[in-house]
Amino acid sequence: MRKTRKKRLSAQSYIEGILAADRIRLSQAITLVESRLPQDQDLAQEIMEAVLPHTGRAIRIGITGVPGVGKSTFIEAFGQYITSLPRKLAVLAVDPSSPKSRGSIMGDKTRMEQLSVNPLAYIRPSPARSSLGGVAQKTREALLLCEAAGFEVIMVETVGVGQSETMVHQMVDFFLLLMLAGAGDELQGIKKGIMEMADLIAINKADGENAHAAQMARQEYESALHLFPLPESGLATPVLTCSSLEEQGIAEIWEKILAHQAHTQKNGYFEKNRKRQNHYWMHDQIRYYLEEAFFEHPPIKKILPQLENSVIEGKTPVQKAVRTLLDIFQNAKKP
Amino acid sequence: MRKTRKKRLSAQSYIEGILAADRIRLSQAITLVESRLPQDQDLAQEIMEAVLPHTGRAIRIGITGVPGVGKSTFIEAFGQYITSLPRKLAVLAVDPSSPKSRGSIMGDKTRMEQLSVNPLAYIRPSPARSSLGGVAQKTREALLLCEAAGFEVIMVETVGVGQSETMVHQMVDFFLLLMLAGAGDELQGIKKGIMEMADLIAINKADGENAHAAQMARQEYESALHLFPLPESGLATPVLTCSSLEEQGIAEIWEKILAHQAHTQKNGYFEKNRKRQNHYWMHDQIRYYLEEAFFEHPPIKKILPQLENSVIEGKTPVQKAVRTLLDIFQNAKKP
Repeated sequence: MRKTRKKRLSAQSYIEGILAADRIRLSQAITLVESRLPQDQDLAQEIMEAVLPHTGRAIRIGITGVPGVGKSTFIEAFGQYITSLPRKLAVLAVDPSSPKSRGSIMGDKTRMEQLSVNPLAYIRPSPARSSLGGVAQKTREALLLCEAAGFEVIMVETVGVGQSETMVHQMVDFFLLLMLAGAGDELQGIKKGIMEMADLIAINKADGENAHAAQMARQEYESALHLFPLPESGLATPVLTCSSLEEQGIAEIWEKILAHQAHTQKNGYFEKNRKRQNHYWMHDQIRYYLEEAFFEHPPIKKILPQLENSVIEGKTPVQKAVRTLLDIFQNAKKP
Repeated sequence: MRKTRKKRLSAQSYIEGILAADRIRLSQAITLVESRLPQDQDLAQEIMEAVLPHTGRAIRIGITGVPGVGKSTFIEAFGQYITSLPRKLAVLAVDPSSPKSRGSIMGDKTRMEQLSVNPLAYIRPSPARSSLGGVAQKTREALLLCEAAGFEVIMVETVGVGQSETMVHQMVDFFLLLMLAGAGDELQGIKKGIMEMADLIAINKADGENAHAAQMARQEYESALHLFPLPESGLATPVLTCSSLEEQGIAEIWEKILAHQAHTQKNGYFEKNRKRQNHYWMHDQIRYYLEEAFFEHPPIKKILPQLENSVIEGKTPVQKAVRTLLDIFQNAKKP
């Protein structure tokens, strides 16, 4: 009885703290969300449920681009601009590639020197989890907590080379792709299909000797995109140039984001998209837990590698292997 | 004892029939593969296992494009060309949109008048199943049976507007996208990301008054594609024009497919891709059966719609809904 009461009070103090924009409570709540301990998860879910009615009011922006495109410097410049409006900004990240530590793409906050000490900005590195499904879901919950804490703009950063962009695309209202002029080499690293996901493409580092090439690239991409299907928002994808160094093009990107929001709120896409995203995450999480139960089941873990190999080599038919595994899984569940 | 023996003989007769290129046995085996009856499935899997060592030797080609692009007419012309070489051709389809009947995009064989009576061609419409995961997997098994029956080229047709292209892309060596000149309108229907999946884009109906516009479109797409990432094969995506009506450009497309095969067999991508596809289908099927068990579970079916709606409307947190469902599912399994 006392324990229950203590826990309840505890959840309440997080909830009140978050709604009062207390950053320490916010950070602690995100840590609970990221925790794998069942008691932390219970507490986290109690908090999530209580703050849910206070979420949904931020503009959610996904930012991606291959390593070397200048994402951190861009986010620093863009973030400084947004906080100068002034708008309260939270920056999150999804980085499934560094499961071992809190390191992640933004662990080193010194990469964003100004933003990390900016009183209107809150930076939180990627959670450390081994699977992408986990990382992305935790980031999505962190996003909701930040909204409840009153942040008006949320940026979610991701590297543009894997599955994580698809996940981030499913949690934001606007998806921004950073590119460089002289694409050739960098294109090889970028994920297929990502260009067609973008709501805006910004050619970064459009400064100094690079300014002309960036302008050329801008025109090329703009005419190329006319040949590709429109984003579902119904708005053509603009291509802009920007320079984080010279702080140019930053305000224009923000204007495009505001125009996109106004347009999609008017044509109903904004709301429709958020609802569809809720549906997506519910099914994503069901799949995630079903698969976790299956693949972490010891007899499955034991037999999987050899069976998988036999299927890959074309020695065992897919259905036979799958049936073998499902039989093992189902029999283990019987008393 | 007698029953087992009878079944064995029966499987054997299918296997021998297929390996002897008996089309009646092949069609019957595909029907078994498509059946939901457990005894049919047992038999089907016995056949699949026996013929597996005899599969893998065909060139597998995926063909997609929005309705109206002229897929049937193209496949008719392309198929007639391939059988004239001569090469034995099987044409399959994945069409999840018509679960009710065998109708499907190719049910009406009269759409391919010549090919349907061509002794070197075998046409099989899409299996009728309610879910895409099911349809695509059945089509993939039909493809393997056709290979065992000695077909040298397999085409898999799909409509270019949904999830089915991704599935077809995962079962073929070469993915061909048909487009029209004067893209504007048709582009709205095409699936995002599909252009970046294509190994070749063919501008169809490049005849009569349309010939010039098709040439223009060809050039535009070709220069646009330079700005996009290369397919994983390492080969740039060529853009050609063709006319099924005037039978032009057909031989060139076939040449590109052969060149692609030669190149990818040399650089190792061909083999790597097929292995990865085997891995993909194994995991796809595990996911499919796990989700089927979950979503077809009566207590889940009962509560899902209201819970889903509450999540979509932002009234219930994703994790809370998912936990509720998983608890129901897991408790039902306990004795």
